[in-house]
Amino acid sequence: MMREKFVLFGDSLTQEAFRENGWGASLANAYNRKADVLVRGYGGYNTRWAMFLLHHLFPLDTTKQPLATTIFFGANDAALFGRTSEKQHVPIEEYKENLRKMVQHLQICSPTMLIVLITQPPIYEEGRRAYAISLYGENARKLPERTNEAAGQYANACVEIAKEMGVPYINLWSKMQETDGWQTKFLRDGLHLTPEGNAVVYQEVIKVFDEAGLSADKMPYDFPHHSKIDPKNPQSSFQQNVCHVPME
Amino acid sequence: MMREKFVLFGDSLTQEAFRENGWGASLANAYNRKADVLVRGYGGYNTRWAMFLLHHLFPLDTTKQPLATTIFFGANDAALFGRTSEKQHVPIEEYKENLRKMVQHLQICSPTMLIVLITQPPIYEEGRRAYAISLYGENARKLPERTNEAAGQYANACVEIAKEMGVPYINLWSKMQETDGWQTKFLRDGLHLTPEGNAVVYQEVIKVFDEAGLSADKMPYDFPHHSKIDPKNPQSSFQQNVCHVPME
Repeated sequence: MMREKFVLFGDSLTQEAFRENGWGASLANAYNRKADVLVRGYGGYNTRWAMFLLHHLFPLDTTKQPLATTIFFGANDAALFGRTSEKQHVPIEEYKENLRKMVQHLQICSPTMLIVLITQPPIYEEGRRAYAISLYGENARKLPERTNEAAGQYANACVEIAKEMGVPYINLWSKMQETDGWQTKFLRDGLHLTPEGNAVVYQEVIKVFDEAGLSADKMPYDFPHHSKIDPKNPQSSFQQNVCHVPME
Repeated sequence: MMREKFVLFGDSLTQEAFRENGWGASLANAYNRKADVLVRGYGGYNTRWAMFLLHHLFPLDTTKQPLATTIFFGANDAALFGRTSEKQHVPIEEYKENLRKMVQHLQICSPTMLIVLITQPPIYEEGRRAYAISLYGENARKLPERTNEAAGQYANACVEIAKEMGVPYINLWSKMQETDGWQTKFLRDGLHLTPEGNAVVYQEVIKVFDEAGLSADKMPYDFPHHSKIDPKNPQSSFQQNVCHVPME
């Protein structure tokens, strides 16, 4: 039996998943000796560019498909057209179609894979502006390259696709805004996550995994717990254990 | 081309590598888009029990051998005979022989694999005692189940094997004791690592990886950086990129 794996597919919010208190690291810790957490996060990528990776990252003919995959895009797709990050902009209808194709492809890879769509977090425009000034000083753009309103539209579109496709979703955009002070509590530059923001993502992901029957405490440990090993005859403890999980 | 992987093989000090500021999480973050960090840590295990896992975790016939593996045992082997954790005790000569066999097996798996031996950290006996009292109150054992002296002997034995086998090592036992206040700065219960202790392990591992030519900045990113993507013709950016790294 091979070790289960969870794949985190997304943009910088996923690429950073092993930073301080990162949601990916927390997930890897919760599922230690149960599943590997593999990060496939690509900073700055929108869904249009991510589509070029899809079949490379998730080949149909792999020996072991992921048990679960999170799809966490939108923050770059929603960058506004005509502003400084317009290169990353993807029209909302194309964004939806790309998400649809991603989910479809993963469902073909494995009909039993848990696929979770995560919307982008809210945008704190003042935080983005302060960040731009810290980088470019007086040359910083005067108009926001991302707005919370646009973020909300893309988040709604993501939820719409999840419902259409019948897969679970996390509406991070609305969830985070339920908490007073979300602007700086959860976001460090108006877009990327603080340790507290990472904790929100982790809690929401765990909730969806639990509801799908993938809670860590229901999954078997690989190899016996040390307290179950007979020190006088350790070999017997390992022979009894049927759950051997080689690397791949 | 498949994604490179680093495997962390060890006891609880490895199993916990994705906890807060964990050395495994920091490694995964440093090598994002370059290598997967897979934890194979087994809390409470000594090298004798770990030998039963070796061929399962590191099969000879896998499609992709790890690029690097850390071997981080000793904390349980060095538990004293005749004390409360004697079940975990492994005589020092057997500990050495087990480490030797692990290195030999990995060298057969891949002659080019970077194999790093890590000694156990020092033991703060007062911290162990306080921890036992917190768990068992008055029933806590009166005599330490681990001593710093024994830990030092096992650490020396580990270094000896590394030199004999010609592989790099990290003498965590001596390294940590160079810092004043190591007892509680680096250890949370006299044995397991605090966030600061994890940072020491991470820094030492990175140093060895760098010296072996595996520093993150020398390894290629998978797929182009977003700034290199031509928004008018993204396909061309992905065709040029030869470093496609499917999941396995």
